[in-house]
Amino acid sequence: MSKLIQQLTIIGVGLIGGSLARALKKADACGEVVGCGRNEDELKKAQALGVIDRYTLDPAEAVVGADVVLLAVPLSAMRGVMTAIAPAISETTIVTDVGSAKASVVNDAIAVFGKIPDNFLPAHPIAGTEKSGVEASFPELFQNHRVILTPLENSSEVALHSVTAMWQCAGAEVVEMSVEHHDRVLAATSHLPHVLAYALVGTLARMDETDEIFQYAAGGFRDFTRIASSDAQMWHDICLANRKEVLNVLGRFRDDLDALTVAFEANDGKAILDCFSRAKRARDHFSTLTAK
Amino acid sequence: MSKLIQQLTIIGVGLIGGSLARALKKADACGEVVGCGRNEDELKKAQALGVIDRYTLDPAEAVVGADVVLLAVPLSAMRGVMTAIAPAISETTIVTDVGSAKASVVNDAIAVFGKIPDNFLPAHPIAGTEKSGVEASFPELFQNHRVILTPLENSSEVALHSVTAMWQCAGAEVVEMSVEHHDRVLAATSHLPHVLAYALVGTLARMDETDEIFQYAAGGFRDFTRIASSDAQMWHDICLANRKEVLNVLGRFRDDLDALTVAFEANDGKAILDCFSRAKRARDHFSTLTAK
Repeated sequence: MSKLIQQLTIIGVGLIGGSLARALKKADACGEVVGCGRNEDELKKAQALGVIDRYTLDPAEAVVGADVVLLAVPLSAMRGVMTAIAPAISETTIVTDVGSAKASVVNDAIAVFGKIPDNFLPAHPIAGTEKSGVEASFPELFQNHRVILTPLENSSEVALHSVTAMWQCAGAEVVEMSVEHHDRVLAATSHLPHVLAYALVGTLARMDETDEIFQYAAGGFRDFTRIASSDAQMWHDICLANRKEVLNVLGRFRDDLDALTVAFEANDGKAILDCFSRAKRARDHFSTLTAK
Repeated sequence: MSKLIQQLTIIGVGLIGGSLARALKKADACGEVVGCGRNEDELKKAQALGVIDRYTLDPAEAVVGADVVLLAVPLSAMRGVMTAIAPAISETTIVTDVGSAKASVVNDAIAVFGKIPDNFLPAHPIAGTEKSGVEASFPELFQNHRVILTPLENSSEVALHSVTAMWQCAGAEVVEMSVEHHDRVLAATSHLPHVLAYALVGTLARMDETDEIFQYAAGGFRDFTRIASSDAQMWHDICLANRKEVLNVLGRFRDDLDALTVAFEANDGKAILDCFSRAKRARDHFSTLTAK
């Protein structure tokens, strides 16, 4: 019986690319996985772990023969990779990516291909840990997680179906939304929280009592700041790639924090309690939304 | 053999008071636990769960015969409780509390007793969950957690030893610091993170895309905002009780966030990467500090 994918080429074999490869192999849904990246040691490791079957350092060579190409490189590397593979991909090759911001990927594609190719389907799996690298990858990463596809007007049905089937095969729930909507929602739920976590840890790290601050921090602080252990270069890329929407939601947050500061300065207990209570209700509502 | 404590009176039998009672009972370190509170149904529940042996709604009656009195009520209720028990406690009764801010407790004691009694030892167990109430209590809550004692100049050795032994018996590591130092460190590691989590959830809850925002939020967001599910009234009390230090660290954070916003507006990738990288190093250092 033929597999869902005959040859999957993954450019950037890290946590996300590696976990998808593992999931598809586990489901016996993929003939051959070809890895590509800049770091040969990482690719050797990926091959030794059985995540990929073979590798090359040359993106153009890597995509030859692939029915699906997954771009799983940092957002800042997307345009360079697209430029490298552009001459080598055929019209029927399905290309998709895993970038955490989507307008920037679409803009990169337009810059490289003139327009976004019909078979280029931008996607974003809402999954990950604060760890990076192929050694952190595991086949269940996407199970019960959502993957957001952001099809364009000219996106082909075959690309939409193939990418949907691929992620469903990895255990994900596939949903669709517009590029603009994706970037606004992700700025709020993912990019801004990372900015705040990095900023908070940075603030505390510069205080005189730093050692004690970190020593006496309890579990709530650990949870709250865990995302500040995420790869700094990657999140720098993501936040800059989605700069407009990050600035928009950051502005809203700063306005609210200013108002709360005024309430503290004025010893306005009612305003503080109202703010905390509204937030608790919303957070508890969110918990019921996401409870499985 | 005589127990560590013959009669422990707990005023406010919730998550913290209830968990301490369970831990001491499990260690067979306590003769009788007397509960006191305003809500009789909660006290009946505590008695049915075996957390307390008997209860009364009258604080003055509750402390009669107690060798140790634990004040585990919200910070806003401390002064009222102290006023109620003042005529009933003997000179040898050891009084301690679990308030998350210490200067406010000391000020309440001075207001009620004229000066802080020699046997009144302020304390703060750095433990808790986002849940409240006696039903959420469990004996292991304090294991491998720190309890900060903030002894005053006139604190008695016997109070210091008794309160230290009590918390050690519950599995906690007991440390000492000054009231001022405690309040500064806790403002940074606990109170400010709660303010930010409440503020962020509040900001997102008022956006047009609220439902989708909460629907597509991933694990990082869940961790980051978990503390916004904490009891709003309690955190309102804590933050206002420690208002001066909360405002101080909130001011530092807002300055840093302003600088980061300027970097985003100027598309200054280097400044953003520097900030994120410094924070990641500090967070990773913190992880090694607290790894057990």
